[in-house]
Amino acid sequence: MEFALIDAIRRRTALARTDVLLGIGDDAAVLEVPPGQALVAAIDTLVAGVHFPLDTAAADIGWKALAVNLSDLAAMGAEPAWALLALTLPQPDAAFVDGLAEGFLALAAPHRVALVGGDTTRGPLALSVAVHGFVPPGMALTRAGARVDDVVMVTGTLGDAAAGLRCVQTRVVVAPPLRAALVARLNRPTPRLAAGLALRGLASACLDVSDGLLADLGHICDRSQVGAEIEAARLPLSPALRQAFALDAARDFALAGGDDYELCFTVPPGKVDDAVAALATSGTPATVIGRIVSGSSVRVQMPDGAWIAPAHRGWDHFSP
Amino acid sequence: MEFALIDAIRRRTALARTDVLLGIGDDAAVLEVPPGQALVAAIDTLVAGVHFPLDTAAADIGWKALAVNLSDLAAMGAEPAWALLALTLPQPDAAFVDGLAEGFLALAAPHRVALVGGDTTRGPLALSVAVHGFVPPGMALTRAGARVDDVVMVTGTLGDAAAGLRCVQTRVVVAPPLRAALVARLNRPTPRLAAGLALRGLASACLDVSDGLLADLGHICDRSQVGAEIEAARLPLSPALRQAFALDAARDFALAGGDDYELCFTVPPGKVDDAVAALATSGTPATVIGRIVSGSSVRVQMPDGAWIAPAHRGWDHFSP
Repeated sequence: MEFALIDAIRRRTALARTDVLLGIGDDAAVLEVPPGQALVAAIDTLVAGVHFPLDTAAADIGWKALAVNLSDLAAMGAEPAWALLALTLPQPDAAFVDGLAEGFLALAAPHRVALVGGDTTRGPLALSVAVHGFVPPGMALTRAGARVDDVVMVTGTLGDAAAGLRCVQTRVVVAPPLRAALVARLNRPTPRLAAGLALRGLASACLDVSDGLLADLGHICDRSQVGAEIEAARLPLSPALRQAFALDAARDFALAGGDDYELCFTVPPGKVDDAVAALATSGTPATVIGRIVSGSSVRVQMPDGAWIAPAHRGWDHFSP
Repeated sequence: MEFALIDAIRRRTALARTDVLLGIGDDAAVLEVPPGQALVAAIDTLVAGVHFPLDTAAADIGWKALAVNLSDLAAMGAEPAWALLALTLPQPDAAFVDGLAEGFLALAAPHRVALVGGDTTRGPLALSVAVHGFVPPGMALTRAGARVDDVVMVTGTLGDAAAGLRCVQTRVVVAPPLRAALVARLNRPTPRLAAGLALRGLASACLDVSDGLLADLGHICDRSQVGAEIEAARLPLSPALRQAFALDAARDFALAGGDDYELCFTVPPGKVDDAVAALATSGTPATVIGRIVSGSSVRVQMPDGAWIAPAHRGWDHFSP
């Protein structure tokens, strides 16, 4: 009964969207994209023990599975609408599914994301979520538009999720309130949807920081055929990260740690003021951290003036 | 590098669709649904050892992962367009990915399905595919429209895939050509896309046979609040199935075996001739196997006249 578990999740929310012509319970969902809007679609999988620690709470897993996908929509400047959930579970587990649904819906409801379909299968714990949203044609934020002299900016703060993972995976001693703040960034990342909408027409390139700042900024450079220079001193670090770790370690987390799901974007010099204002209106803090240069590499200037060109640009899912 | 493997798959095809505004290589795909069409979306996961035997060829896995999803679109009467692929692999394996791509594209190309995005992660072998297609609003074939006195029909033949699985999993002795024919139905199911389109406006309810005829017809009965009566003597059995197994076993495969991915549908009595004609035009064989009755159960009349109401209606992914 492929729909029983998915339906149990659906029933936990009353969210109705008039653009869902047919939702959960048939072979597929039937959906209506608004006139004048393009469809934006992404899929991401979370595997237990790879993308989240095995003892992660079900509600956190449900939240994160949706969050990492909504973050892809945010990075495109898209407005979210619908999700499909493919859930693989070792065995039926009503309490786990309840928790999963609770976390999923805690994020879906405020963003008016309707769960419109899914699949449940037996196997090692994993979740694939496909999300769908809208953007006016030609307004999508891509990775390919960065130009020399554009400024490089990020939303929020970087490094907390990697520091949280360090707290979970090692015996590092961190004061409980700080630890909780860092682990919350790991387990319940905030997709920057309002920021993505605010950046339409302003950012020249954009993506979300999932593999680590250097790796992800490298993706923008690859697609845009440019290089980038980052000033380490400008990296936005949270108070919790600064208090819990030494500055060098904090900067390493911010540069190479993944899973923050902040947006990294480039803005033409003439649009920086507008971008900062639009982000402020959307309630999103943002920081200039560097600029786009010619070339193809991402370089970092340390506070002492030395330049580093990190070989390890973040977390590769298939690196040894 | 989440796109490297997906991109390797994409590069194996030259398929271009003008409705793909932005394909693989960014945070999400940007797509254009044709004016006047609703979007149809489904997701299905295949897990190694659960949905296919562990020694299944990579190309067969790639084919089947797309096929079971396109079958969902077929069951809705939708025209396929785009797919997202989330691939979980224990380790990077270029030969495996090549094989997977070959099988995926062997099915995608003739149906003009473009792979527009994806994700690769490390973990136990599994594939989640999300597919997207179009249907005019109000024309989707659902599970909910069956009415008393409608006839019950199926496309093609039933039971081959379950018989193929029996051949793979046990030491049953079957002549090699027959075995090959049955295993091909298991590994390379044919989504009945042309039949789904032909049935628009004619079928009152429709789904694809993935869990087994009795289980799936039960889904139509549940959603339509009706019962159904099937005549076992009318079940369409392939020559290979009839030659490889005794009639009783063949009928059991046809009634309870899953994975055939034929369409099971209901047609109002006044539209049967039109449906048969439309299916013939689409090149799809179809057979009347029973009728919709009042009540809520699926009953089967055996050739000796006895009625059975099977308790086990097919394969439940979470049954013990």
